[in-house]
Amino acid sequence: MRSHNCGLLRSADIDETVTLCGWVDRRRDHGGVIFLDLRDRDGIVQVVFDPDTEEHFATADRVRSEYVLKVTGRVRARSEATVNPSMPTGEIEVLGKEIEVLNTAATPPFQLDEHTSVGEEVRLRYRYMDLRRPEMQQRLRLRSEVTDAVRRFLHGEGFLDIETPILTRATPEGARDYLVPSRTHPGQFFALPQSPQLFKQLLMVSGFDRYYQIAKCFRDEDLRADRQPEFTQIDIETSFMDEAGIMEITERMVRGLFKAVLDVDLPDFPHMTWAEAMERFGSDKPDLRIPLELVSVDDLMQQVDFKVFRGPADDPLGRVAALKVPGGASISRKEIDDYTRYVGNYGARGLAWIKVNDLAAGVEGLQSPILKFMPEDVVASMMERLGVANGDIVFFGADRAGIVNEALGALRIKVGSDQGLVGDGWAPLWVVDFPMFEDDGDGGWTPLHHPFTAPACDLATLREHPGEALSRAYDMVLNGTELGGGSVRIHNLETQEAVFDILGIDPEEAREKFGFLLDALKYGAPPHGGLAFGLDRIVMLMSGAASIRDVIAFPKTQTAACVMTEAPGTVGAAQLRELHIRLREQEKKTGDS
Amino acid sequence: MRSHNCGLLRSADIDETVTLCGWVDRRRDHGGVIFLDLRDRDGIVQVVFDPDTEEHFATADRVRSEYVLKVTGRVRARSEATVNPSMPTGEIEVLGKEIEVLNTAATPPFQLDEHTSVGEEVRLRYRYMDLRRPEMQQRLRLRSEVTDAVRRFLHGEGFLDIETPILTRATPEGARDYLVPSRTHPGQFFALPQSPQLFKQLLMVSGFDRYYQIAKCFRDEDLRADRQPEFTQIDIETSFMDEAGIMEITERMVRGLFKAVLDVDLPDFPHMTWAEAMERFGSDKPDLRIPLELVSVDDLMQQVDFKVFRGPADDPLGRVAALKVPGGASISRKEIDDYTRYVGNYGARGLAWIKVNDLAAGVEGLQSPILKFMPEDVVASMMERLGVANGDIVFFGADRAGIVNEALGALRIKVGSDQGLVGDGWAPLWVVDFPMFEDDGDGGWTPLHHPFTAPACDLATLREHPGEALSRAYDMVLNGTELGGGSVRIHNLETQEAVFDILGIDPEEAREKFGFLLDALKYGAPPHGGLAFGLDRIVMLMSGAASIRDVIAFPKTQTAACVMTEAPGTVGAAQLRELHIRLREQEKKTGDS
Repeated sequence: MRSHNCGLLRSADIDETVTLCGWVDRRRDHGGVIFLDLRDRDGIVQVVFDPDTEEHFATADRVRSEYVLKVTGRVRARSEATVNPSMPTGEIEVLGKEIEVLNTAATPPFQLDEHTSVGEEVRLRYRYMDLRRPEMQQRLRLRSEVTDAVRRFLHGEGFLDIETPILTRATPEGARDYLVPSRTHPGQFFALPQSPQLFKQLLMVSGFDRYYQIAKCFRDEDLRADRQPEFTQIDIETSFMDEAGIMEITERMVRGLFKAVLDVDLPDFPHMTWAEAMERFGSDKPDLRIPLELVSVDDLMQQVDFKVFRGPADDPLGRVAALKVPGGASISRKEIDDYTRYVGNYGARGLAWIKVNDLAAGVEGLQSPILKFMPEDVVASMMERLGVANGDIVFFGADRAGIVNEALGALRIKVGSDQGLVGDGWAPLWVVDFPMFEDDGDGGWTPLHHPFTAPACDLATLREHPGEALSRAYDMVLNGTELGGGSVRIHNLETQEAVFDILGIDPEEAREKFGFLLDALKYGAPPHGGLAFGLDRIVMLMSGAASIRDVIAFPKTQTAACVMTEAPGTVGAAQLRELHIRLREQEKKTGDS
Repeated sequence: MRSHNCGLLRSADIDETVTLCGWVDRRRDHGGVIFLDLRDRDGIVQVVFDPDTEEHFATADRVRSEYVLKVTGRVRARSEATVNPSMPTGEIEVLGKEIEVLNTAATPPFQLDEHTSVGEEVRLRYRYMDLRRPEMQQRLRLRSEVTDAVRRFLHGEGFLDIETPILTRATPEGARDYLVPSRTHPGQFFALPQSPQLFKQLLMVSGFDRYYQIAKCFRDEDLRADRQPEFTQIDIETSFMDEAGIMEITERMVRGLFKAVLDVDLPDFPHMTWAEAMERFGSDKPDLRIPLELVSVDDLMQQVDFKVFRGPADDPLGRVAALKVPGGASISRKEIDDYTRYVGNYGARGLAWIKVNDLAAGVEGLQSPILKFMPEDVVASMMERLGVANGDIVFFGADRAGIVNEALGALRIKVGSDQGLVGDGWAPLWVVDFPMFEDDGDGGWTPLHHPFTAPACDLATLREHPGEALSRAYDMVLNGTELGGGSVRIHNLETQEAVFDILGIDPEEAREKFGFLLDALKYGAPPHGGLAFGLDRIVMLMSGAASIRDVIAFPKTQTAACVMTEAPGTVGAAQLRELHIRLREQEKKTGDS
């Protein structure tokens, strides 16, 4: 139907007769001539109709925004005065000869270039309009390029693309499952997978050696954060490879991806232990672009009487840490109050601070409500340890270590960003040597990753000191975002049973939930491991979008609904009967609940 | 962990020291030497341990089938007598130096080479064992090659890979939906998509121009045929392209796929109208490898008194057709009885036949229970029309046209296959010019494809003669299987409303079900169309598998269950309460249903 795409016309096409199809981005009438900006997915070109071609001029005159046109005309150079260097097609225009209206358009619910003036709800309701915006077009095109680059790499490395089921059994990731009632098995339900974890392990047991899948995953969680009920994972698993091998191949994949799609050479990926990341950044996914670090001062605070600091400093589970912000002395009292509230969200009960006004003046040159509680020599040692300079501010956290890390870790990002300290570019790293378990606060253990993660120690040590055991897990982090995480898996039945035991899953429950995995481990499971990347998050980072909703064609709202199709929706009684279920609401009405 | 893959070792590797990982396919003890067949996804290699290496010999001695090993040794040529030309690695063997047991294996539930002796249920329960069979490995590897070739082609042609939602609204394909209760919207349900049809149309309205997705689709149907609750579509849609363009590009894709994966050059794809396909083959997906055709004899049968034939011949909705099978006179009476029962499955009330024993003898040379009902000249004209020869048999169908076509169409395949008449190779074609609607037997119309298919006629004609209107749909058929089907879609609001009207969907219902589509058609929908291929079926055909279950890693049984993971399963009361539903079973027990 067309000879060229609008957005790709250039000076080289001058004098060509072209046929274009696209949408009217703008129509202007100027000096008796009609200018149409015709838009397709490749961009916009200006088409000019003058009154010479009477019939077509009349048609051009009545078209409106978002009409769909087919236009034939001749490409010509724009006059020097009208060249538009900000448009890729700005050196040329098309002199229209023929015009056909392929479809009309009612007045759009919002003008594409005024999308910010309407709420996100309107943009989601008319998603097909919002997706016409060049920015959205580019993001989804980038997403397509990303999946293509990933697939090309993995296929080239011998990974097989294997699909795993969507209608499956409840999976053990711990979040709430989406359920699907079975018609043929009354009273029973499928679950939508939270990840293909167990299936990919079974594919290794099956001998496929290298598997990948760009897989839909589902979690019925509250969507406070930037989450979606369905999201997409780049899911990878290999046999006969240790963590070094898996990290090497996936790092190469991400490096190649950035090169292919953004022409970016990522810097080296340093390896950092989980313990170091928590100590220095209060986070297991540190943003290394921010040149601020947490510094432990527990030993110093053991010398003060001030209970707020002394208590956590003496407590083996506590932590007192300082965060120095160079140049931060200009932060106002009001801003400090805001930061205090901010760290309160993470459980911190306050935010102590010291401003460094004049280092040469000793304690006199410092400004802080807490100085009066601390001996001068402790303050001096602390200032020395922190290497402060005039104009700095130091924030303090003192509490259980978990709270201090979360609060100061978050503050580090916030202050760093507010103060314009976030460096340019890309700062990737690997976080390694995670603990196997964390205290569930109830005398038991929960897995830090999932219960199929292999321990880095032997079985006896694992059983004796589960709290100290490290796992063979690894996370890839970029600019403070976890791109993906994985581990070497347990391939040995005895180890798997021991881990279930430590987690308080008795053999009967293990059999009931994971019987097929335990069986599979019996019949010759190879050593294996893998990794899963969050595709939505990778594309969001690469495209600079602010939310994963902006890199998903048809996302759900924060209440897990689609305002465009009005999903979820009601369902007839007959259909529910076939599925052997009934609404609870209904029952309430009849008073039998 | 390894230097080479087992199945890839060749004579060129002789004298290399290699480290291999894999499964023990077989262990033999012969003349004081241990032979291990070590298997990985690339094949099998023979490893030999002799008693020189005492410790490793002892280990090799205790390994059993399906143990996972790591073996280091030297590649050497086999002696001339022991070269095995049927194995790709058969010219060499590995003289084992070191052996490590990576994992043991209990006695397998079945020996891999004895899979046919256990039922499919056992193979599905231990699917991870069944998938170790080289045949299954090859099928899933072929599937991965197919998706890769398809993606590479479509990406190269500028199609964007865009994901559409799995949690969505009931879709209009007409089969039963799988439903997902919403936790955040009490009493409401998502549906799993039967296809991304409406989303891909909306992507065209969004201006993406060319879309593809290898998409999971879901239908909660009874699985009598070779169907699965979840299946995979290669889903394609383009804007500004007519049916010729879409058929050209998708034919090129399939041609390239067969070349890339099977090194097969598909022959030309003839175009055949739906009417011709039904007339000549009684099927809209004719297997052109079978050189048998239906021949209409209605005009001749209007001259006989025999009611069974005369009735349908006189009825404008009836049909009398003949199917000549060359050399079929040898078909026994018992076989004819079997065929009679077979066509009975398709609604035929009998199967008349005539055997041609001696053409020169006239009617005397024919053998048939129905000859007595027919005038000799009619028989003679018929024999002439059919071009029979001695030794042929002719079968007859007489009934409503639909039944005759289904019954004789199926018989054609069955007899053709039984008589060894199915030609070699690949016989693709396009079936075009489908009717828009079919009689729903209730005075109304149902769409032959779906209600978004564009008509080939103008609106006035469509409204006046819906039964005669043709659509702009097309199916790609290969060897009697529909590989895919598609159409140019309706992009015009008035046409869409007219089609809904003909289908008896009133404006309110249309608004309620498809409001978002009707809105989208208002705001500048481009001309567009596309096609969806059944990936499972394509891979089944290409791999020569007998069932789509053999080309799906983890398929469901005929009752839509997974016997390995035991899905679907029961769910706790608390979880159901969160989803605002209750089991009906439960209610019966408390007597309040």
